[in-house]
Amino acid sequence: MNVEIISVGTELLLGQTTNTNARFLSQQLADLGLNVYYQTTVGDNRNRLLKAFELAAERADMIITTGGLGPTDDDLTKEALAEYLGMELKIVPEELDRMKKIFHMRKLEWVESNSKQAAFLPGSTVLFNKYGTAPGLAIKVKNKAFILLPGPPREMEPMFLNHASLWIEKNMGNTGVFKLYSRMLKFLGISESKLEAELHDLIAHQTEPTLATLASMGEVHLRLSARAKDKEAFQELITPVLTEIKGRVGEFIVAEDGETIAGNIGRLLKAHGLRVATAESCTGGMLSAALTAVPGSSSYYTGSVVAYSNEVKTRVLGVSAEIIAEYGAVSEQTALAMAQCVRRLTGSDIGIGITGVAGPDGGTKEKPVGFVCIALSAPDKDVSCTNQFKGDREFNRLRSIKAAQYLLFNYLSKIKHE
Amino acid sequence: MNVEIISVGTELLLGQTTNTNARFLSQQLADLGLNVYYQTTVGDNRNRLLKAFELAAERADMIITTGGLGPTDDDLTKEALAEYLGMELKIVPEELDRMKKIFHMRKLEWVESNSKQAAFLPGSTVLFNKYGTAPGLAIKVKNKAFILLPGPPREMEPMFLNHASLWIEKNMGNTGVFKLYSRMLKFLGISESKLEAELHDLIAHQTEPTLATLASMGEVHLRLSARAKDKEAFQELITPVLTEIKGRVGEFIVAEDGETIAGNIGRLLKAHGLRVATAESCTGGMLSAALTAVPGSSSYYTGSVVAYSNEVKTRVLGVSAEIIAEYGAVSEQTALAMAQCVRRLTGSDIGIGITGVAGPDGGTKEKPVGFVCIALSAPDKDVSCTNQFKGDREFNRLRSIKAAQYLLFNYLSKIKHE
Repeated sequence: MNVEIISVGTELLLGQTTNTNARFLSQQLADLGLNVYYQTTVGDNRNRLLKAFELAAERADMIITTGGLGPTDDDLTKEALAEYLGMELKIVPEELDRMKKIFHMRKLEWVESNSKQAAFLPGSTVLFNKYGTAPGLAIKVKNKAFILLPGPPREMEPMFLNHASLWIEKNMGNTGVFKLYSRMLKFLGISESKLEAELHDLIAHQTEPTLATLASMGEVHLRLSARAKDKEAFQELITPVLTEIKGRVGEFIVAEDGETIAGNIGRLLKAHGLRVATAESCTGGMLSAALTAVPGSSSYYTGSVVAYSNEVKTRVLGVSAEIIAEYGAVSEQTALAMAQCVRRLTGSDIGIGITGVAGPDGGTKEKPVGFVCIALSAPDKDVSCTNQFKGDREFNRLRSIKAAQYLLFNYLSKIKHE
Repeated sequence: MNVEIISVGTELLLGQTTNTNARFLSQQLADLGLNVYYQTTVGDNRNRLLKAFELAAERADMIITTGGLGPTDDDLTKEALAEYLGMELKIVPEELDRMKKIFHMRKLEWVESNSKQAAFLPGSTVLFNKYGTAPGLAIKVKNKAFILLPGPPREMEPMFLNHASLWIEKNMGNTGVFKLYSRMLKFLGISESKLEAELHDLIAHQTEPTLATLASMGEVHLRLSARAKDKEAFQELITPVLTEIKGRVGEFIVAEDGETIAGNIGRLLKAHGLRVATAESCTGGMLSAALTAVPGSSSYYTGSVVAYSNEVKTRVLGVSAEIIAEYGAVSEQTALAMAQCVRRLTGSDIGIGITGVAGPDGGTKEKPVGFVCIALSAPDKDVSCTNQFKGDREFNRLRSIKAAQYLLFNYLSKIKHE
């Protein structure tokens, strides 16, 4: 079965937005064993949208659109599909009620133009939008499927995963005998080129599974993918390669598939019954934000002091002014003192301290932009290290919290169970 | 003149790569005053590539492709174009020499398959590739232009900027007399539909400039765009509309174009000589991270206490245990006490406090998931408010820090200069 993806939005044609929706959907469809031969992007123009539907229906069995479902005049996707199918949109009262309730709860004024979001084609399935007001729509007409999804990725992605994919399974039959499966390993503490070099023979071999590295937000990911008849067959296929990889670079693997390093840190902290606190300078709360992104983190995360000024470092954290004066605010000594102080202050088992020069200003010859000191203080030991990152402010801050997480992960994963 | 962008590559259809090329080219073409009505993505398949050329040539005057120019068997873009035009590819000896020299210099082994990268259509212009081996190609046949660029962005982007754009200027006439300009206004504190309703007559009018709203990461953006001969003419054109918009919804505008709300908050703090500190519970440092993302924020940002546990709220921040016991950890009273305490603790002029239920657990009937209290404490007044967000943990945290930033921005923008 062939699928065509139509991305709707003038902002895409003007280059104001990167089309991450087409990528997300393509990836999901590949995982379902469905072929995508074309992706099309078209603006908020009824006539061209209609033509895009005509063309896509000629060359594909399923057409998935993103965008153009909102309340405004230039949201036209449903209208164009209705015209293409020769059908009429009708307001679904329950959807209208649901929408009005959301507006009421959010204390937003109801504007009549919102009603059009509750209009659907007769015989279509309403796809629930958990994160926005515009629902999606799925309909099968003469053996062709049309699935209309909203444009914002944070609404579209869960709608596809939780609703559209189930509709596809149910309405479009058993599509793939051999599905494409993949496994993702996430690395920290090793560069992409170093990882490539370590696994060079495995990557060059490139039979099933194929191996591909990707650098992503300060982490290095390795994807193993292969076609298999089911998950068990895939698991069996990759086991020898996986064992080989773990033997060579296992210590740098911090997460797999849907896991995150912050989630795995949380799991380890809970397993050992430990609580952690952080003291941040240049990263300004990013480490704390990352650790608390995990649901339930309050059971092992106590809090953080973001000590941006030296005054806060001494007055709130209690770092001795002598240490700062002697070694400087950016030093392993200060990072360690921050870790020790926040640990004591919050009554936690482990403290993490970060201090550095994020840039673009504040660098010196000895401590240039990207110079970041990180420390960990735990009951059995204190550790500190210095990193020299080579990027802009955002990059240096991101790499700093990844390095701090790796330090913490590494410490926790080496604790022996009694 | 209309342009169609064809992105070539099976990796795009499998969702392994995000298509940043289409965005880059669309942006550049808009700046040149050229219209893009369609973007198409097609795999490394000769037949479908040929069809994509046929279709694009029907609906556009200029076709720009990216990808499929390399040495391997599945690099087929030039071959498909040659077939479409009924022409034959011929090796250009100088290009072949140049390529062999590059291989020699880089100490790479010459593989015969590389020769095909030196093959071009008769009458075409070779576009120099400074960062890779595969050159691009531009040709005008019967008033239609075809420009073939490589796939890797770091090769494609400089080739477009330094060679293809000049070829377009020279061969496709005076296209850039009227360029497309745009201005972006960023809103907080108003929903997309409310903004549309407020500006409905202006949006419906839709002459120059055209107005379009976009929801983005908890903010609502409004784009004004128009064709004009230069920036000054554009400015003149939009001034009356801009004045009208600001008169109606100016209080919700937090930033324009490249500005961010955090940057503008910083600007206002500096202008008034004020320093701010934050105390966060459910947002776990995200507000602090957002405010310190701005270079130079250390001049007005002192620090933060992330008080995740009640113990930290009382022990580190100094919030009275009675307030927490009487009103609950999630209450406007506690939020305000957090703001007041962090203000005092860090010696700042302004304190912000956030406490809420981010989810997925911890909600009660009175205070369900998404219930977030935010407060501001300043020398002249204390403010607090309650929000009910309706999303997952990530969404609720994001909306919370946007609401807190709006509270702070609003306070700062109303300070009268003495």
